[in-house]
Amino acid sequence: MMTPALSVTAAGGPFVPTTLTRRDLRGDDVHIEIAFTGICHSDLHQVHGEWGDGIFPMVPGHEISGVVSAVGESVSAYRVGDRVGVGVMVNSCGSCEHCLAGRQQFCVEGVVETYNSRDYDGTVTYGGYSRSIVVRESFVHGLPDEIDLEGAAPLLCAGITVYSPLRRWGPVVGKNVAVVGIGGLGHLAVRMAAAMGAEVTAVSRGVGKRADSQRLGATDFLSAESPSDLGGSRNRFDLVLNTVSASLAMDDYLALLRPGGVLVNVGAPGAPISCQPFSLIAGNRAIAGSMIGGTAETREMLRFCAENDISAEVEIVGAKEIESSYRRLRDGEVRYRFVMDATTIGG
Amino acid sequence: MMTPALSVTAAGGPFVPTTLTRRDLRGDDVHIEIAFTGICHSDLHQVHGEWGDGIFPMVPGHEISGVVSAVGESVSAYRVGDRVGVGVMVNSCGSCEHCLAGRQQFCVEGVVETYNSRDYDGTVTYGGYSRSIVVRESFVHGLPDEIDLEGAAPLLCAGITVYSPLRRWGPVVGKNVAVVGIGGLGHLAVRMAAAMGAEVTAVSRGVGKRADSQRLGATDFLSAESPSDLGGSRNRFDLVLNTVSASLAMDDYLALLRPGGVLVNVGAPGAPISCQPFSLIAGNRAIAGSMIGGTAETREMLRFCAENDISAEVEIVGAKEIESSYRRLRDGEVRYRFVMDATTIGG
Repeated sequence: MMTPALSVTAAGGPFVPTTLTRRDLRGDDVHIEIAFTGICHSDLHQVHGEWGDGIFPMVPGHEISGVVSAVGESVSAYRVGDRVGVGVMVNSCGSCEHCLAGRQQFCVEGVVETYNSRDYDGTVTYGGYSRSIVVRESFVHGLPDEIDLEGAAPLLCAGITVYSPLRRWGPVVGKNVAVVGIGGLGHLAVRMAAAMGAEVTAVSRGVGKRADSQRLGATDFLSAESPSDLGGSRNRFDLVLNTVSASLAMDDYLALLRPGGVLVNVGAPGAPISCQPFSLIAGNRAIAGSMIGGTAETREMLRFCAENDISAEVEIVGAKEIESSYRRLRDGEVRYRFVMDATTIGG
Repeated sequence: MMTPALSVTAAGGPFVPTTLTRRDLRGDDVHIEIAFTGICHSDLHQVHGEWGDGIFPMVPGHEISGVVSAVGESVSAYRVGDRVGVGVMVNSCGSCEHCLAGRQQFCVEGVVETYNSRDYDGTVTYGGYSRSIVVRESFVHGLPDEIDLEGAAPLLCAGITVYSPLRRWGPVVGKNVAVVGIGGLGHLAVRMAAAMGAEVTAVSRGVGKRADSQRLGATDFLSAESPSDLGGSRNRFDLVLNTVSASLAMDDYLALLRPGGVLVNVGAPGAPISCQPFSLIAGNRAIAGSMIGGTAETREMLRFCAENDISAEVEIVGAKEIESSYRRLRDGEVRYRFVMDATTIGG
């Protein structure tokens, strides 16, 4: 099966139209006509070769929503016409302790990612900047009726990336939670934490997102142009969820934590994370990292979003706007996620 | 009340005999004839002025065991003749949320430490390198009969320092726990973690402590002269408890953790802690710090030690050996804690 796609032929190069061959359906495969694909900050990193050797040509896209158009003979969970999503992972060994627990992101054989990755048979994976995709049933997620397709796509990466640490380091009900960076990830984190019953403070450069933050569910807002802006909020938060990819002055952010508090990084700056030993020892504080979530938690997250009327705020763009969208993403000029209308690819 | 003591008059200076005046007993005070005082690595840091401005003259000592010799009129928990201990703290505000929860180390007014600290009335505190001490009842701990006085003293700092993170980041029963550094703190951590039901691996430079580690309860031993020695144990441990004050190659130690694992630092190196962002993000790992424990947890720890036949392995030294003991402590030549026989002070 051939499908139009957008590809980058070398690191940093422009997107060009191309045609992919999707594999014939295996027994447990689902063929999906893609409706929308989120443009994730990690696409930008990988297209520019910033995370080590990329596999080129590269077709990014791991925030996929669409409709099932065909299923393999053994597929039982999905039928043609079902609304579904695909996130960051498309295969794993299926038999290690982590896969059996639904935490395939920790698969001991190495999880196969949706693009810029090699499947176990050696084939390169190509992502959602295309009209259709073929994915194993176990990595396809049913989308609740309450969530529209454009708002659902970013939940599959941005959404699960912030949902998972809010659950692990919670329960956050009644707790003070700071969300640092109000972008694609952060705006969903504010919504989710508020829906979980936390008192949410949005932390952002400048004051441009103050009103939006309150609309999203934050009860307070901190402008953080410089570390001194944070001084009045020391010892205040049980959890600080940092969605910013840039390097932060970690000691100043750790000082925001109450005793026993945890700062979780989900953004990946290029430079090492560094802090003074006593920033952790005094107050029994911790710095944690978190990487997406497994299929079990992704499905839990989708149900949670449906029950709490949560989806991403998106700006829909066409395939011809991909370069300008990347520039605006790099400059932080999107509220809050670009999703590409996949029907404009190859159109 | 006058009492002989050992004092350092300026940072780095030698110990000299002196005489302290201990305050007249207030209603809730307990007067203790000190039997033994542990020599803690933090004494060495503070005597040498390595943790910022010290208050000199300084009388160190915050691992104190002894016998009650007098009590204030309102003291109800202790009587003359009781075996008791005092740790790192001797006062706190008593009314903030942390004090009310028995976690006085986080007191919002600032906890008063046993030495090198100022009490709320402005008086300087002097510690256990002396024949007697006066401490508020609420910071005195009854010692279980099962634990002898010399083995009990180090539990009050070294013991609670490792017990608290083993509890917070546990339960460790059936889990793989690595204890890095087999010294004053580490040898107690091995014993406690083993008694809690963990599979304990001791990590030490060289192989000199292999046999001791097994006797203490470790089921495995890793020699860590260089980071490459650790390569065979990647993704193995649920908890790594680092008791070493020197800076470690943090990324190599984080790689020892299973997904979701936590590395806890209780030693305080002089240099910042640094790691790659993906060392935390991949595998949802965390670096935490931990600082002693409150009075509630200290008493829980003492009961736990009594029930599990745990105390410190000590070498008893006299007051005249203080300088040589400090040299041997700095060179790592003590198995596993020096305790000073307080009756030799001023003798």
